[in-house]
Amino acid sequence: MPNSFGKLFQISTWGESHGPSVGVVVDGCPPALPLTEAEIQADLDRRRPGQSDITTPRKEADAVEFLSGVFEGRTTGQPLAMLVRNGDQRPGAYDEMKEKFRPSHADFTYTAKYGLRDHRGGGRSSARETVGRVAAGAVARKILRLAGEIEVRAFVTEIHDISAPAFTKFPTLAQVEASAVRCPHPATAAKMIARIKQVRAKGDSVGGVIECRVRGVPVGLGEPVFDRLEADLAKAMLSLPATKGFEIGSGFAGTRLKGSQHNDVFVNKRGRVGTLTNRSGGVQGGISNGEELVFRVGFKPTATILQAQRTVDLRGAGTELKARGRHDPCVVPRAVVIVEAMTALVLVDHWMRHAAQNRTFKF
Amino acid sequence: MPNSFGKLFQISTWGESHGPSVGVVVDGCPPALPLTEAEIQADLDRRRPGQSDITTPRKEADAVEFLSGVFEGRTTGQPLAMLVRNGDQRPGAYDEMKEKFRPSHADFTYTAKYGLRDHRGGGRSSARETVGRVAAGAVARKILRLAGEIEVRAFVTEIHDISAPAFTKFPTLAQVEASAVRCPHPATAAKMIARIKQVRAKGDSVGGVIECRVRGVPVGLGEPVFDRLEADLAKAMLSLPATKGFEIGSGFAGTRLKGSQHNDVFVNKRGRVGTLTNRSGGVQGGISNGEELVFRVGFKPTATILQAQRTVDLRGAGTELKARGRHDPCVVPRAVVIVEAMTALVLVDHWMRHAAQNRTFKF
Amino acid sequence: MPNSFGKLFQISTWGESHGPSVGVVVDGCPPALPLTEAEIQADLDRRRPGQSDITTPRKEADAVEFLSGVFEGRTTGQPLAMLVRNGDQRPGAYDEMKEKFRPSHADFTYTAKYGLRDHRGGGRSSARETVGRVAAGAVARKILRLAGEIEVRAFVTEIHDISAPAFTKFPTLAQVEASAVRCPHPATAAKMIARIKQVRAKGDSVGGVIECRVRGVPVGLGEPVFDRLEADLAKAMLSLPATKGFEIGSGFAGTRLKGSQHNDVFVNKRGRVGTLTNRSGGVQGGISNGEELVFRVGFKPTATILQAQRTVDLRGAGTELKARGRHDPCVVPRAVVIVEAMTALVLVDHWMRHAAQNRTFKF
Amino acid sequence: MPNSFGKLFQISTWGESHGPSVGVVVDGCPPALPLTEAEIQADLDRRRPGQSDITTPRKEADAVEFLSGVFEGRTTGQPLAMLVRNGDQRPGAYDEMKEKFRPSHADFTYTAKYGLRDHRGGGRSSARETVGRVAAGAVARKILRLAGEIEVRAFVTEIHDISAPAFTKFPTLAQVEASAVRCPHPATAAKMIARIKQVRAKGDSVGGVIECRVRGVPVGLGEPVFDRLEADLAKAMLSLPATKGFEIGSGFAGTRLKGSQHNDVFVNKRGRVGTLTNRSGGVQGGISNGEELVFRVGFKPTATILQAQRTVDLRGAGTELKARGRHDPCVVPRAVVIVEAMTALVLVDHWMRHAAQNRTFKF
Repeated sequence: MPNSFGKLFQISTWGESHGPSVGVVVDGCPPALPLTEAEIQADLDRRRPGQSDITTPRKEADAVEFLSGVFEGRTTGQPLAMLVRNGDQRPGAYDEMKEKFRPSHADFTYTAKYGLRDHRGGGRSSARETVGRVAAGAVARKILRLAGEIEVRAFVTEIHDISAPAFTKFPTLAQVEASAVRCPHPATAAKMIARIKQVRAKGDSVGGVIECRVRGVPVGLGEPVFDRLEADLAKAMLSLPATKGFEIGSGFAGTRLKGSQHNDVFVNKRGRVGTLTNRSGGVQGGISNGEELVFRVGFKPTATILQAQRTVDLRGAGTELKARGRHDPCVVPRAVVIVEAMTALVLVDHWMRHAAQNRTFKF
Repeated sequence: MPNSFGKLFQISTWGESHGPSVGVVVDGCPPALPLTEAEIQADLDRRRPGQSDITTPRKEADAVEFLSGVFEGRTTGQPLAMLVRNGDQRPGAYDEMKEKFRPSHADFTYTAKYGLRDHRGGGRSSARETVGRVAAGAVARKILRLAGEIEVRAFVTEIHDISAPAFTKFPTLAQVEASAVRCPHPATAAKMIARIKQVRAKGDSVGGVIECRVRGVPVGLGEPVFDRLEADLAKAMLSLPATKGFEIGSGFAGTRLKGSQHNDVFVNKRGRVGTLTNRSGGVQGGISNGEELVFRVGFKPTATILQAQRTVDLRGAGTELKARGRHDPCVVPRAVVIVEAMTALVLVDHWMRHAAQNRTFKF
Repeated sequence: MPNSFGKLFQISTWGESHGPSVGVVVDGCPPALPLTEAEIQADLDRRRPGQSDITTPRKEADAVEFLSGVFEGRTTGQPLAMLVRNGDQRPGAYDEMKEKFRPSHADFTYTAKYGLRDHRGGGRSSARETVGRVAAGAVARKILRLAGEIEVRAFVTEIHDISAPAFTKFPTLAQVEASAVRCPHPATAAKMIARIKQVRAKGDSVGGVIECRVRGVPVGLGEPVFDRLEADLAKAMLSLPATKGFEIGSGFAGTRLKGSQHNDVFVNKRGRVGTLTNRSGGVQGGISNGEELVFRVGFKPTATILQAQRTVDLRGAGTELKARGRHDPCVVPRAVVIVEAMTALVLVDHWMRHAAQNRTFKF
Repeated sequence: MPNSFGKLFQISTWGESHGPSVGVVVDGCPPALPLTEAEIQADLDRRRPGQSDITTPRKEADAVEFLSGVFEGRTTGQPLAMLVRNGDQRPGAYDEMKEKFRPSHADFTYTAKYGLRDHRGGGRSSARETVGRVAAGAVARKILRLAGEIEVRAFVTEIHDISAPAFTKFPTLAQVEASAVRCPHPATAAKMIARIKQVRAKGDSVGGVIECRVRGVPVGLGEPVFDRLEADLAKAMLSLPATKGFEIGSGFAGTRLKGSQHNDVFVNKRGRVGTLTNRSGGVQGGISNGEELVFRVGFKPTATILQAQRTVDLRGAGTELKARGRHDPCVVPRAVVIVEAMTALVLVDHWMRHAAQNRTFKF
């Protein structure tokens, strides 16, 4: 159950970095959705290592295979299982980590919690686990597209101390994918890429911020009180490796406004109720209000760096560790599609929940 | 199910602002816990309206009654139901809101989602719903105290643009409760109180930031991958009314550091593995590492203000609304105990989950 | 969580026999359902002790009070909490049971599991807990009635070794309620009542069998593979106190037929696919097929009898126990409405689940 | 979620009869359990088609592969995914079923529910789905064996109208496996085998009854009120294809006894509280009492028979169907290991739940 997410459109992921495979089962997928492995692959390719010169050079084809749930090109309503075999493993690169805990990594906590761990490449704590999320997210995104022309778009707004100017328009996918860093502002993207290469050259790492927007969200998604839409989004985002913060709409900056400045005035937008501004970020009372969903996620710098660091070993004795292996100097660009995946999963799940309670019976 | 929280120590809340009552059922509470209504009342009194001159003057005794689950002063392991009757209702104060949507409030989204709503005082979307959370949280906090001398301490660090200096020491409860605003830095607290009174005089409102720390947390709480401790805390916090952001440890500021600056070096602390710094905020790989848990929550300014605001009515026609009623000009001081409650609930739940998987069988 | 039932239309019950109250929260109730306390009361009155001369003489008004979730006569979509205060308690009648375990009762297992128990009247293990189920079931039954003219009808077919002839027609509510024993075959009912009085006179007890039928069930309720409709019905029934068996359609007798005798032939029934016979009991592959739902539940004789019985005490020493107190010599007649309640809860929940997956999106 | 079972030791199965594979993810498996694919294979071999001359001649190696969760021969506490590739498919054998509904099979209900179905070999409704259950059950059984020398033993007591005499002793695995029909009474087994061959020769089928016993169960497993041990067992059993009934302990026969005859007297059994008789079947108040767990499951005759049967087609027109393909004339012998698997899954799950609530904190 800790490895499942969603209540009606539920995914369960499995797999570790250097085990045989990673994968996912989607339970509750609506039937008759046209679906091909190629569509899933397109999203996996955006997550794949080795896709550009600012990511890890680890080579993984990450080819997805349907194990069940699709018949004659359509989903059957039965569990949709998808598998990606792991390849290009150099387990020897992790021998040192068997005995030493990498600072700010999950090595110590997993060992303490379970009494043992698969130390190769971080095992289950590796971001490789997100392969299953991205595959399932591709299904969710297709449902959103077909159901309501809903577009989920994430992009990088900050890398280290470099920030892009605010985006007034909804960026296109092409704009996001135009640069390896996935910042749709070309001049800023160039600076970001330069910074990432610079820190990598020193064996160091940087973090950043991803913004995610969704347009076309129907009114009414999200549930009082614990399963507010922003609560489930926050959980989804903080469940991603390396995340340290989440804010929606005005976020932390909004705490410095007065109510009279912060409130979003309601207006009639061509027959529907809308708001003039969007400090709410598309949710009010935990429920989508039909405006664009807007939130941001903060990622810390990659914990595994190639510099020597002090640490302790399995016996608690002080030692030094200099990681080898092939690591991303910055996880943020590859995380863009993961943020999109988790967002789509939350939305489809809440859509189904909303329909179940409010559209099933009429009185 | 949307009104339940937790997997093993599960709470289900009910009730709306001006209905007959608010309450909670705690399912999964361990047996034999000594428990009195007076202990619950102590936390409810910290949440109660009318407790100081910077909160709403609404008068509610908020007296808790055990409906089940306690026998001869101890919990029985059966559902613990707790009830608080609503009082001091002036439903007439909300007549106008029956027809008009308050900006940045849940009025519109509830109406759109359910087709009807209890408009009196916000109904279920009112923060009055948190009475049940605080009552259940008081149980969870007692468990933590008895089980491991674990202390959960939340306090106000920002109101509007007034920030307290960083707290190097773990604040005592007395320090937090010393001021009505619950900021343990007296000089800052005085400024905050003055600011709240000032905006209230103009019918306006302000927001702020709460920091929460927990000391004594055992190593090993939190689950890969979706139920990371910080993911469940983020969900818990974003499920609170008026919250717009969550960050743990270094948070968004940490995204501007390099890996070599951000990583927490492991050291041997008198026989246990610890870290020199705590930018991780007490979690690594989603699992508690034994250091202090540290996170922050951002609250927007209260949506209901006493100034005239543009809005639309049920038919979508433009109109103006000037709220009446008794509202908090700033919800943050009263939210302190709610943040503590949700934190304690997350910790007890994860403790039980950890024990179930990792302590039940020995191989 | 052990005290909750249902995934989308979820109930959580609380309360013990001699505590302050019993009650229930219904989470996920569709909004706008017209609902009054009187409608709930009607079902509670069918469950109430003291309703006839073959039930316990314990007097309980069992008056229900809405604690939340109804506004201006309609459900709001928010949690619907319902409370029944306990009355007429004679705790002294249970003093002996504090020290001695009643044979075939939950006294020993609760003590062993929790380390303590509320011994008064069985505490949580008492059938008094089903008050909350019946109240919630009344809501579910109203939904079924309004949504599809679906009727849930349970009735007694066996008491001790007295069996009613098979009912070829769907019994009316009036026929069931015509006798205190709730067997719609008057001659058999008279014999059953005589038998119950006879065993009561000797301080003994008897069990029996309830049949439940539902007509008007839409095709498609139930889910592969673990949440088959019959699996959830079986769980619902075996969760009732004193039940020892469940069978659907042909049941155990069906195991003695050949496939060629047992199969239900499909025919076209005025434009819909139907079956000529109904050995399937209304489900095929775990999913309702549109035929009448038919199943049976076996109840053991009441464990608490007024004869002296050998047993052991808290210290494991042999002793003798002769129960006092007011107990039903046969729980079966009062269980009829409880069986109906659980059945309705299963059906509404599955209806919502079916709609969520299969009616929300169209491709 | 409909394809998941268990709350803490949770399994999620996937796969259909003639799709690429069937499999399972076990989430919540305790770490450090020694586990090999060979151990899983042993149970799969007992479920495998083609294992004897009274089962379907379909040939499937059913070789299991670990996809994740085991490292250096031990479970890691992370999701344990297991895969079995489907082989020996003759989809042509099912062409006729694409258009015609097999009587008493899931063909019609799946089509009605989902709007489409994978008709090959029953798709997801096929008993082939139970491969994943058996694989996961093998893990659960090993945990029980190591944790408490708990033995789960199912065996056939009835085939068609042939019944074995009551088993006073707990049958050994060797006794059960001694005959192809898995009835540990050799003379009866011979008759059963003869009967199965006889009906198969006529293209017909028979059903039967399986009894399951568990010895060594600790006191305290099972939860009031909805998750009683017998309720979860009933659900587990009725979730199996072809099951029509469940009874525990005295079962339906017990409804014909008086309370004074039915009650199990408590006695001191060498220092522990036990019962003289076991009509309760090992549970009281929904909680295990330390006696042997005893229950029975009724299976209907296989729906797919090789005789011509009346039915309707996709358009509702009357037609005739004579199934081809390779089908079991009696599913009961192969179901023995499936019953054991589900039983073990329920027990491990409840053991973990019990420990979480009652063993985690001490007051």
